[in-house]
Amino acid sequence: MKGDEYYMRLALEEAERARASGEVPVGAVLVVEERIIARDHNRTEQLCDPTAHAEMLCLTAACTALQSKYLAHATLYVTLEPCAMCAAALGWAQIGGLVYGASDPQKGFTRYTPALLHPRTRVRQGLLAEAAQYLLQEFFRSRR
Amino acid sequence: MKGDEYYMRLALEEAERARASGEVPVGAVLVVEERIIARDHNRTEQLCDPTAHAEMLCLTAACTALQSKYLAHATLYVTLEPCAMCAAALGWAQIGGLVYGASDPQKGFTRYTPALLHPRTRVRQGLLAEAAQYLLQEFFRSRR
Repeated sequence: MKGDEYYMRLALEEAERARASGEVPVGAVLVVEERIIARDHNRTEQLCDPTAHAEMLCLTAACTALQSKYLAHATLYVTLEPCAMCAAALGWAQIGGLVYGASDPQKGFTRYTPALLHPRTRVRQGLLAEAAQYLLQEFFRSRR
Repeated sequence: MKGDEYYMRLALEEAERARASGEVPVGAVLVVEERIIARDHNRTEQLCDPTAHAEMLCLTAACTALQSKYLAHATLYVTLEPCAMCAAALGWAQIGGLVYGASDPQKGFTRYTPALLHPRTRVRQGLLAEAAQYLLQEFFRSRR
């Protein structure tokens, strides 16, 4: 049985793909009972859309694939703490689990309130956070 | 010169369209210098997507139309107070103005924090609020 770390490594692969195409390197994978339903990365530049975060793209793709607005049996793995937009979207979907890597003190949802998520969502933070943080730091350093 | 009330009436027309297709009746219009760039209504049922709120659809359409992730010269008119997801999305886009009708004590963004919006966004609330509220109340009453 594959564990959280396995899926977070796939999310990191997605973050690498984001970096390779000039996007802020954040990746996400959405899993239901060991099946990967969606995986994507930040595409705000490519789509010219400030809402095209990895989490939003996975969420919309998964709801379409599963034909459900609610994802109580799904877990989202994402390399960076979701922003308030993404957390509230995960709240609307009543997602079962959220596992994230690096914290985001500037834009992360916990800066506002954890209540943006559904009360039943299980949250795990800090998984492979150093690798996720490293990708982000390198990206922003290379842009300066 | 057309004023806020003109555009809010168009947003109410969109809310009526939502109701006619069995969606929660919320409508939005996005305007830049008297040009209507996008108008849409809640489509969460039709698209089976919990993120398909009127505001998100207008925002994504407008960014594509204007080829910009930032909408500092735009004003969004929406019949109901945006939720945290939509407010944070408008924050990412640094939208110039937000005019909304009815308040939403349960899910409205001001329940969390107004800081989800960009600090330069001008906000006007309560415009044609009674009409917006009436549509919502009738919709939920008819569903009981």
